[in-house]
Amino acid sequence: MDSGTTIGADLDTDKTRDAIVRAAREILVAQGPDGLTVRKIASAAGHSTMAVYSRFGGKDGLVDVLFGEGFGLLIAALESAGTTDDPLADLDRQGAAYRRFALDHPQHYSLMFERPVPGYRPGHDALTVANAALEVLARGLERAMVQGTVIRAEPATTAISMWATCHGLVSLEMAGAAPPGIDWETTYSLTCQAVLRGLAPY
Amino acid sequence: MDSGTTIGADLDTDKTRDAIVRAAREILVAQGPDGLTVRKIASAAGHSTMAVYSRFGGKDGLVDVLFGEGFGLLIAALESAGTTDDPLADLDRQGAAYRRFALDHPQHYSLMFERPVPGYRPGHDALTVANAALEVLARGLERAMVQGTVIRAEPATTAISMWATCHGLVSLEMAGAAPPGIDWETTYSLTCQAVLRGLAPY
Repeated sequence: MDSGTTIGADLDTDKTRDAIVRAAREILVAQGPDGLTVRKIASAAGHSTMAVYSRFGGKDGLVDVLFGEGFGLLIAALESAGTTDDPLADLDRQGAAYRRFALDHPQHYSLMFERPVPGYRPGHDALTVANAALEVLARGLERAMVQGTVIRAEPATTAISMWATCHGLVSLEMAGAAPPGIDWETTYSLTCQAVLRGLAPY
Repeated sequence: MDSGTTIGADLDTDKTRDAIVRAAREILVAQGPDGLTVRKIASAAGHSTMAVYSRFGGKDGLVDVLFGEGFGLLIAALESAGTTDDPLADLDRQGAAYRRFALDHPQHYSLMFERPVPGYRPGHDALTVANAALEVLARGLERAMVQGTVIRAEPATTAISMWATCHGLVSLEMAGAAPPGIDWETTYSLTCQAVLRGLAPY
């Protein structure tokens, strides 16, 4: 960042940055992660490839922005499921919100969880927001543990079990990689409930 | 297939076919599904692109061979887990065999379950062998249902629940898309057991 010498220059920089991020997002949504090249993004934004490199250091910096943005959307979706005095019902709604997020944002979802961009590793800020999403789930599980409906364990570890189950179901649904005729909404709900029931004290 | 006029011609056709399949398999393993182009495969096999088109109809025909081959390997892995008089323990070993298959054959696994080749749809024979793999799991679940350790339901539906859970866990492990420091072997086993316990009569 070559610190703006005037307010006008800063504003211009922000507008350029925004235009590049918007172009990258549109390419991601329309073409998937494979479509994300610096050349395409710069061209769609109406800027030079140098503008992309100077602001984001290259493609990975932009992928990082979209990756963090995806987790921000996921956190909002999980939190919108709400909190009642029935933690298991809350977790069920969080699970449904996770599936809805994946179906509504399949390309962000791929970027976040399938890591389709060769060589890309999320940066510190992006990982922080990713971990925050897992913590929303862990907090819900901790409430169920306190209530005694889920066995006491490290909530973060239990969150991985629940997350992986949700991920497996929605991944197969989105890939179309299962026999036809499956009622995914019902199968998703029943399987998530089975994991939670299986995690109960026994 | 322009039916061989002599035994020699048939043998030659088979050798060409085998060389092309072997080249496609090697490219899949080394470069992943994105590396599968008719030009690359033909070149690696030492044949013309026409040889690929005439024998397989194009890239999708070859992908179909590798897809079916992957499911054949998976069936062998699942069946090698064996059958005892403890269906739940058998299912646990089948689950472990599934994970081992995925880790040993990540590129076949991707082809089978992530559907990374745009426009590719498995043909009839490939789908038949894919369904046979799910049936191995369904048979194991049916034995547990008969024994009363898993709730009576359509085994094929219950198999989807267990399969999706295994798939979600191993997908996150292979993508490196979870916080570091997870003991995946243990998490995998505990989560699969939780699903099975959650599917028990209640």
